[in-house]
Amino acid sequence: MNTPVLYLIPSPLGDTPPSGVLPSDHIEMVRTLQYFVVEELRTARRYLSALGLDVRLLEFGVLNEHTSPGELNGLLEPLRKGHSMGMLSEAGLPAVADPGADLVALAHRGGFPVVPLAGPSSLMLALMASGLNGQKFAFQGYLPVKPELRDKRIRVLEKQSALEQQTQIFIETPYRNESLFLALLACCSASSRLTVAINLTMPDAFICTRTIGEWKGMEPDFSTVYKKKPCVFLLLA
Amino acid sequence: MNTPVLYLIPSPLGDTPPSGVLPSDHIEMVRTLQYFVVEELRTARRYLSALGLDVRLLEFGVLNEHTSPGELNGLLEPLRKGHSMGMLSEAGLPAVADPGADLVALAHRGGFPVVPLAGPSSLMLALMASGLNGQKFAFQGYLPVKPELRDKRIRVLEKQSALEQQTQIFIETPYRNESLFLALLACCSASSRLTVAINLTMPDAFICTRTIGEWKGMEPDFSTVYKKKPCVFLLLA
Repeated sequence: MNTPVLYLIPSPLGDTPPSGVLPSDHIEMVRTLQYFVVEELRTARRYLSALGLDVRLLEFGVLNEHTSPGELNGLLEPLRKGHSMGMLSEAGLPAVADPGADLVALAHRGGFPVVPLAGPSSLMLALMASGLNGQKFAFQGYLPVKPELRDKRIRVLEKQSALEQQTQIFIETPYRNESLFLALLACCSASSRLTVAINLTMPDAFICTRTIGEWKGMEPDFSTVYKKKPCVFLLLA
Repeated sequence: MNTPVLYLIPSPLGDTPPSGVLPSDHIEMVRTLQYFVVEELRTARRYLSALGLDVRLLEFGVLNEHTSPGELNGLLEPLRKGHSMGMLSEAGLPAVADPGADLVALAHRGGFPVVPLAGPSSLMLALMASGLNGQKFAFQGYLPVKPELRDKRIRVLEKQSALEQQTQIFIETPYRNESLFLALLACCSASSRLTVAINLTMPDAFICTRTIGEWKGMEPDFSTVYKKKPCVFLLLA
């Protein structure tokens, strides 16, 4: 029997067909798996079905922000029984910007090989296409929700970016994209560069880099066209 | 005529076949292109040929660390003449950890759409598989070469990691991997976690996360098995 492996399987960022998400070798490999840990059952079932798997024959564990540390161990049970497993997040790369890293750490501690597969990362797609510094960057996750704390954090990130020529990458819950965008215009220096990358990999994807000064009066249409669409923000002072 | 587009095309990290690198939709699109800006001509020709392009019919510009700012503008000439172009780095994602970002910025200023394609990123593959914090991380590029400055920088990065629970990602010229690894063991706290990710996507890929204390006496074989292989280091205090 082969050593059981935990495969980290990228998911589509939107409803892209699988032929636009994973290399064909990866698709072939995923088709051999029966056990999965997923962030969202419905999305994962739809995706795996589109990859050509018969989802009625699959077994799923769920790992999301409600999973307690005590439940993690049980999720790796198939590995202990000798079966390779796949791990999927709701969109993009598992264990990046989602709660999956602890399960990966547990697999390491159990001595199981972890194999990451190549696929779309909204953070990296946005960084590549930004034209901002790709030789030094930081992903900051979500900024604070309270306007005062958020604005303070924006100023800290801008200062740090200026100091180290580091591209700052952050995200927001989609319905707050517009207020974050406006806060960036209000808080940052006119010469700082801001990239807004909305709905990446989808036909209506929007990627634009301008200085804060240039963005004024050019706001992306967050209230209709890009309403509640996922957006990555990148800032370089 | 369609608007000409600058496509950012990921390259293999090793000599993986294209069926393990790009989704098939992306391969189809790349086959329609005639103009490319590449970091390394020889590698790019071999890769595009493996993707099914007739390289004798292609036109190449070269963008690497020797390209002067004054030469950048000329590299986008095909876009101005109405032709879409592809940009490739030597390995992984163009404009991430390589000098391509300035050309992307120039395309933005010229009003040309920039479309990033999904593919392997050694940094993200290493991060996914590390089990370290994927909700907050920074890519620091190369550390200083001089041992004193390098060790000082390692201590600063470890401190920053502890303060912000930020995974620190960095790389080294392959022949210096071993000395960087030993410096990490010497400089960091025994409880800090270090991931070593060598030769990702290749059959002999090695990904392992241990505390600094646990790594002592367990050094990867940098002098023979993993001699001069690309390696990503990740540190979380």
